[in-house]
Amino acid sequence: MFVVRHTYPLKAVNYIRMHGDATHSQGAQGHDVINRIRDFGIVPESEYPGLKINEPLHNHGEMEAALHGMLTGVLARKGKRLTPRWLDAYQAVLDVYLGEIPESFVFQGNTYTPLAFAKDYLQINGHDYIEITSFSHQPFYEPFRLEIPDNWDYNSNYYNVPLDELEQIADYALNNGYSFCWDADVSERDFNQGSDKNDYGTGIAIVPLPDYEYLTKAEKKKKMTAIVKEKEIDQEYRQHMFNNFATTDDHLMHAVGLAKDQQGNKFYYIKNSWGTDSVYKGYNYISRSYFRLKTIVVIINTQALPPQIRQKLSL
Amino acid sequence: MFVVRHTYPLKAVNYIRMHGDATHSQGAQGHDVINRIRDFGIVPESEYPGLKINEPLHNHGEMEAALHGMLTGVLARKGKRLTPRWLDAYQAVLDVYLGEIPESFVFQGNTYTPLAFAKDYLQINGHDYIEITSFSHQPFYEPFRLEIPDNWDYNSNYYNVPLDELEQIADYALNNGYSFCWDADVSERDFNQGSDKNDYGTGIAIVPLPDYEYLTKAEKKKKMTAIVKEKEIDQEYRQHMFNNFATTDDHLMHAVGLAKDQQGNKFYYIKNSWGTDSVYKGYNYISRSYFRLKTIVVIINTQALPPQIRQKLSL
Amino acid sequence: MFVVRHTYPLKAVNYIRMHGDATHSQGAQGHDVINRIRDFGIVPESEYPGLKINEPLHNHGEMEAALHGMLTGVLARKGKRLTPRWLDAYQAVLDVYLGEIPESFVFQGNTYTPLAFAKDYLQINGHDYIEITSFSHQPFYEPFRLEIPDNWDYNSNYYNVPLDELEQIADYALNNGYSFCWDADVSERDFNQGSDKNDYGTGIAIVPLPDYEYLTKAEKKKKMTAIVKEKEIDQEYRQHMFNNFATTDDHLMHAVGLAKDQQGNKFYYIKNSWGTDSVYKGYNYISRSYFRLKTIVVIINTQALPPQIRQKLSL
Amino acid sequence: MFVVRHTYPLKAVNYIRMHGDATHSQGAQGHDVINRIRDFGIVPESEYPGLKINEPLHNHGEMEAALHGMLTGVLARKGKRLTPRWLDAYQAVLDVYLGEIPESFVFQGNTYTPLAFAKDYLQINGHDYIEITSFSHQPFYEPFRLEIPDNWDYNSNYYNVPLDELEQIADYALNNGYSFCWDADVSERDFNQGSDKNDYGTGIAIVPLPDYEYLTKAEKKKKMTAIVKEKEIDQEYRQHMFNNFATTDDHLMHAVGLAKDQQGNKFYYIKNSWGTDSVYKGYNYISRSYFRLKTIVVIINTQALPPQIRQKLSL
Amino acid sequence: MFVVRHTYPLKAVNYIRMHGDATHSQGAQGHDVINRIRDFGIVPESEYPGLKINEPLHNHGEMEAALHGMLTGVLARKGKRLTPRWLDAYQAVLDVYLGEIPESFVFQGNTYTPLAFAKDYLQINGHDYIEITSFSHQPFYEPFRLEIPDNWDYNSNYYNVPLDELEQIADYALNNGYSFCWDADVSERDFNQGSDKNDYGTGIAIVPLPDYEYLTKAEKKKKMTAIVKEKEIDQEYRQHMFNNFATTDDHLMHAVGLAKDQQGNKFYYIKNSWGTDSVYKGYNYISRSYFRLKTIVVIINTQALPPQIRQKLSL
Amino acid sequence: MFVVRHTYPLKAVNYIRMHGDATHSQGAQGHDVINRIRDFGIVPESEYPGLKINEPLHNHGEMEAALHGMLTGVLARKGKRLTPRWLDAYQAVLDVYLGEIPESFVFQGNTYTPLAFAKDYLQINGHDYIEITSFSHQPFYEPFRLEIPDNWDYNSNYYNVPLDELEQIADYALNNGYSFCWDADVSERDFNQGSDKNDYGTGIAIVPLPDYEYLTKAEKKKKMTAIVKEKEIDQEYRQHMFNNFATTDDHLMHAVGLAKDQQGNKFYYIKNSWGTDSVYKGYNYISRSYFRLKTIVVIINTQALPPQIRQKLSL
Repeated sequence: MFVVRHTYPLKAVNYIRMHGDATHSQGAQGHDVINRIRDFGIVPESEYPGLKINEPLHNHGEMEAALHGMLTGVLARKGKRLTPRWLDAYQAVLDVYLGEIPESFVFQGNTYTPLAFAKDYLQINGHDYIEITSFSHQPFYEPFRLEIPDNWDYNSNYYNVPLDELEQIADYALNNGYSFCWDADVSERDFNQGSDKNDYGTGIAIVPLPDYEYLTKAEKKKKMTAIVKEKEIDQEYRQHMFNNFATTDDHLMHAVGLAKDQQGNKFYYIKNSWGTDSVYKGYNYISRSYFRLKTIVVIINTQALPPQIRQKLSL
Repeated sequence: MFVVRHTYPLKAVNYIRMHGDATHSQGAQGHDVINRIRDFGIVPESEYPGLKINEPLHNHGEMEAALHGMLTGVLARKGKRLTPRWLDAYQAVLDVYLGEIPESFVFQGNTYTPLAFAKDYLQINGHDYIEITSFSHQPFYEPFRLEIPDNWDYNSNYYNVPLDELEQIADYALNNGYSFCWDADVSERDFNQGSDKNDYGTGIAIVPLPDYEYLTKAEKKKKMTAIVKEKEIDQEYRQHMFNNFATTDDHLMHAVGLAKDQQGNKFYYIKNSWGTDSVYKGYNYISRSYFRLKTIVVIINTQALPPQIRQKLSL
Repeated sequence: MFVVRHTYPLKAVNYIRMHGDATHSQGAQGHDVINRIRDFGIVPESEYPGLKINEPLHNHGEMEAALHGMLTGVLARKGKRLTPRWLDAYQAVLDVYLGEIPESFVFQGNTYTPLAFAKDYLQINGHDYIEITSFSHQPFYEPFRLEIPDNWDYNSNYYNVPLDELEQIADYALNNGYSFCWDADVSERDFNQGSDKNDYGTGIAIVPLPDYEYLTKAEKKKKMTAIVKEKEIDQEYRQHMFNNFATTDDHLMHAVGLAKDQQGNKFYYIKNSWGTDSVYKGYNYISRSYFRLKTIVVIINTQALPPQIRQKLSL
Repeated sequence: MFVVRHTYPLKAVNYIRMHGDATHSQGAQGHDVINRIRDFGIVPESEYPGLKINEPLHNHGEMEAALHGMLTGVLARKGKRLTPRWLDAYQAVLDVYLGEIPESFVFQGNTYTPLAFAKDYLQINGHDYIEITSFSHQPFYEPFRLEIPDNWDYNSNYYNVPLDELEQIADYALNNGYSFCWDADVSERDFNQGSDKNDYGTGIAIVPLPDYEYLTKAEKKKKMTAIVKEKEIDQEYRQHMFNNFATTDDHLMHAVGLAKDQQGNKFYYIKNSWGTDSVYKGYNYISRSYFRLKTIVVIINTQALPPQIRQKLSL
Repeated sequence: MFVVRHTYPLKAVNYIRMHGDATHSQGAQGHDVINRIRDFGIVPESEYPGLKINEPLHNHGEMEAALHGMLTGVLARKGKRLTPRWLDAYQAVLDVYLGEIPESFVFQGNTYTPLAFAKDYLQINGHDYIEITSFSHQPFYEPFRLEIPDNWDYNSNYYNVPLDELEQIADYALNNGYSFCWDADVSERDFNQGSDKNDYGTGIAIVPLPDYEYLTKAEKKKKMTAIVKEKEIDQEYRQHMFNNFATTDDHLMHAVGLAKDQQGNKFYYIKNSWGTDSVYKGYNYISRSYFRLKTIVVIINTQALPPQIRQKLSL
Repeated sequence: MFVVRHTYPLKAVNYIRMHGDATHSQGAQGHDVINRIRDFGIVPESEYPGLKINEPLHNHGEMEAALHGMLTGVLARKGKRLTPRWLDAYQAVLDVYLGEIPESFVFQGNTYTPLAFAKDYLQINGHDYIEITSFSHQPFYEPFRLEIPDNWDYNSNYYNVPLDELEQIADYALNNGYSFCWDADVSERDFNQGSDKNDYGTGIAIVPLPDYEYLTKAEKKKKMTAIVKEKEIDQEYRQHMFNNFATTDDHLMHAVGLAKDQQGNKFYYIKNSWGTDSVYKGYNYISRSYFRLKTIVVIINTQALPPQIRQKLSL
């Protein structure tokens, strides 16, 4: 919530400067976490829960509606000058809904500012992390601004590598004891969370063959739900599915390990935040094909990169 | 601004309760002033100017746009429950734009709360003032809620008297040393403010004859701009012009005296708030016909009423 | 339908006067019935069914759409004067859909006007009935205008009493042979109509514990559907659930008796208008908690009030 | 007004059948007059003025707004069945605004029905009149339905002839004592009505050269306002200016004669309905070029056609 | 697709000329096929599949959205002149989505233009086919333009006959070896396609008794799903159900034969285009009542008409 | 037009990827010119006028409306996959309106491709030019993406320097024989183009004192139009006027020299593209204050930078 509290005003300023031709929604990207920690630090959740008394769960719908309504109202006065107060008002609304941010707090007996807590206690340095992706519509090995609606930040930088190198980066990191933040599209039918509500809960995400993009409904029904041969994903198909909006929604997870099934197929072992009431107690297995097709971004410590790729990226 | 600051939240609560089927705009009615003083007191303008440093003039457009946008956003979530925080957020936005209201202040060496200032220093008692109007679509001598867009307050009470008695009330008050607050439609062409921008500035408001409701444009042009015979206004015509939206916009002024022109026609002498750069230095003369046709409400101390009318109203 | 026919034009006039910042919908309030009887009388349904030949059921959707469309069209001409004909046209549309109202009719051998029928045959006097509710956002023991979307009438008066007294009024009336009109929110899952379409039809309305406002879905599923301990409702919780839009939709029913379950819990026995094809043949049992939480208004004969409350209300 | 009263319901039925994908506005076409007389007859204006007492001028804006609003409201109930009452309601609104149509009336001592009045008194037979136009996007010498927004009638028939023959028809008729109804675009700057409000009132309509479609503003200013050489209009240019929306608005006038200016240029002498307070007392002179470019339709008695053209049209 | 490709631009030109007060959607009518063949010829599907490589199925949604968006954008510039390029641009978009139409092609060893293919190979002459329907709101035996949203063509001609003659035409044609194109409303619950997804698949379309227009839900549930007595359909009921929007959606099928059930009731045997995975392998049986109630149009060769009806229609 | 033709598709792809939360309008930025030349080259205007026969002037309104309408239509199909054809269709519409781009052309006897023409004939290298601006809401000396609506390119890079250095850059370049492209807000009243339509045409742009941000209208009228003392512009005021939307619209001009008035005040001499019919024949004088306040961007060859600033920017 500390990150949320600091991200909204930046999003709003950009939205206003662009006269509404920009993103102002609840979605966020990995750099929103990294850059906020870099610039504002971080606090333990207990010190800034973003909740009022008697509210066990977050409900940002009304806050988002009120904030967006304010900006819409202000921008509707076309041709009128703004006062600097609209932003103060926006901040005040955030403080009402999320509470005011503590300037400092006591944690395990020590007093920290948020910046000091990030640096001294957690020893996280926002400058150490980068976002890596792989899309052929932009040049490789150069930073660019990823054009997806959740990315409101016009000054964000993504590093772009060929798809095979993206997979190498993930494997190298996990094999060398680094986990990473995995931002991926999980809205597909074949991302099976394995929750107890689903009789066919597998907890596994795959890209099954035959390619069913143009199958009839009847043919789709006959597709096996057991372990199936998967589609091999190359750069072109990945780009095609991004261009046609098949890959859209995204969600942040934590990739923590590698695994193999009985046939030796590689899977990524990831920790999800959707509760532990599922087949693998809140974890999922992501097939290599799914990883190659549906990864939006990998947020990773520059230390965890294979040396030759790090060199190509001048990091 | 103290009154404005206290009126907006009431307006907003009503707007939310009615799910937007109500008024939320900058306009107000006389009881907004009276009832706020009654419930919250008042402060000198110097103690609550509603302005930030370096801003010489009030500009409520952006504030209104932000506030209305918030409510629109919140109500658009149809079927969702509200949190109590939307109102806190609304209040916070008001505090950003107008400043926080002082709990107490020093004035001429004494410390007052707003309520104490109204009672002890100004000796105004909100309970002493009533709103009087004259419309035949509601019963006379009973309080009712006037159905005009600016009147957001579903629990306001207007006293309704026949038109001749409305005129008697005004005359009796002015003849006995009471001024009153005059709320009237001033958007008519024949309310001539007398400003220096108008070559034909007369500073006078009239209802000229011939009745030009159905005149052609050419005939209207020929109508004299000098002193003209005016239309005699009765209850029925007044009601007709209210029903057909000819009488709509309204504005609060201060009626301070009576006058007669060279032919003995009665005029009301009123103080306007549109600056003093005009024929009568910020004052205007309102003809009897204009008063009878275009008065929305007279806000007046109950002490200033003619005894027999006061009795009819059980005051 | 006689009441509907007389209420629509009043609603329309108010909607037009407020330039659309008001309610114009099918919903109504108890005073709509009471006040129409007071001012226009009433006729037997057979004398004014509001139906044309061959139409067994009422369908007001198209009529409402046509009427509302007319008003929207007329108001969209911003700044234009209205003719008095819009209301004649509105009345004409009502006559087409509902038929013309009889000036007089023969019933059981006697000829009545609607007013005479109400007075002489039914001996109903609209002045004898009042609306009572209980909300803490307005002062108790004073009439006020209830701010809910269905209440289009700016001049309606509700009497406001503390919640315990509202319950006393209901009990006193039923114990002394008076029934009353019960206006309540019946859109809740726990208002179980007991229709044959519902396998778990109980015909009972309750407010079950544990308080499930913040329960997860899984927890809600586990909640018992049998007789359960109910939440005790106080004024504050009632107000909270009104403020947050949990209590919104309303429906008029007829409270005719009191009952107790095997554990001695009090229930109100009410007659509903949704057909008799249900567990209790068109009747329902309303728990004390449900009554305290979800009652919008009780419309009751002033004779049926407990004397001490009647005194407090100056009735 | 008799024609207006009978045309609106036909327009409305078509609009409803097309689910709103059609025209419902105040505009009309010549066949609306002809076909209404054919099917319903006609009455003198004194017998059906379409006005209520005390209203000297027609104001159809509010009526149109109310009628259109009704249809919009009814159609917004997508997927719902209509009752037959919507049309009764529509007719009732027309009766309120325009009055009920007399079934018969006394005129100059005789009693007529509208149909009898058209046939016996006026000796007009709707079957005798046709609409002629000239557009190359449809085949010549065949009836077609002209695609302009004012033409709501899907079953109207226009006869299409080459432009030169259109001019021959007009000239032949006027030379042989027949006048005709001229429907043309009069919204152009060079249709100069000659009203007293215009210092340069000429009362003449022309198509001046040089062709100013692509002139700069400065060049346009320099164009002479005196008698100027006009552009020669051929079929292609006429069609071009119809296709590009330069020719759009239309107005019905009465062509009554031919004239020549001092240079021998042919002009049509037409009677307009915009009052007689103009250079030629309510008449205008229309140049040959203007006639060829801006004529939408000529409504004419089949008797007035040149025999060889009448033959081509099989009339 | 050849027909689609040639129909869209005509639809667009009409939509633009009517300033959007017209139909521009995917729906079409039988004359769209007939008239396009008449004016542009036809090609085998293999020569103009309207598909790009790798796309097995048609998806016109995006194309329609892009085309409609273009027109909406162009028309939104109210009062501006159009360039002729909007139509070129529209055609270019069609060429992108559907491919360019071949000027000529080789089929079975011969080279054809589309017009030559229709005339010489298929020997179809668009002039030989007419559309017949039966609606009492227009005069019988005269051509008219059917007022349904799918009929965008203001110059289409439908022949109108009494309902009994419509049935005679269908029977005479099928009995004499002519099939016809059947355009009907198939959105009714009682048009049972007989697909494998429906356990109660009958493949039959009926109009069951009792007339259930005003039945309650419970009564409807009790209605038999087996062979039932059907409602007898007359002209008035057919018209009533067309007027009230019960008959709306339409679909083109191919009527190829007549059949009788065990009770001797007549059924039409029609070929549908919804795949062959159904009870009657893609065919359906249509009861006489259904045919009489739900037929929008019969498109038929003039040779197939009973002589006496052909005479009445002057064909 | 060559640049326009290549920029639109890039703008469209970005707009689609951002699901419409981005800019798609006619406006552009300096890097649009630079980057298009870098990637696509350039052609002489004669080789790609972007006009069809008989059209003397560009009119991009209809094209923009058609293109934007297409994208709006495509995006409105929420949740649907895109085909790759939408972009082909978009390109086809551009080709219809602007013509197809020549792959090569003959100029002064030599054949060039657009890229070869830029490199060999004009010797422009897009990599040599950068955009420089000065805003304090972003860090200085780092590239960033300027947040103004006209800047649709999420991957554009602006170099940010303190305001004094921006002025140094401009002066150094002009003093050393380099001109630059000046992108500035020219919508202010005090940017006086000096056209012949303006009696007070001065051809000069200034920021007059007294600061009139909060003056009354009367006071503004009294402000001199002759040479006046100007407001001194610092970084904070420049940022304030950018934040409050006072600085918004922008226009590209060509800065070609320096000048001084009789009091020694520095002016920039710039070439405008609005025609030569003005006081200084199409040129204007821009005061130092105006330059400091209203410059959006300076687009300049890196060779023209003062060495020490070039070093700070690592160029």
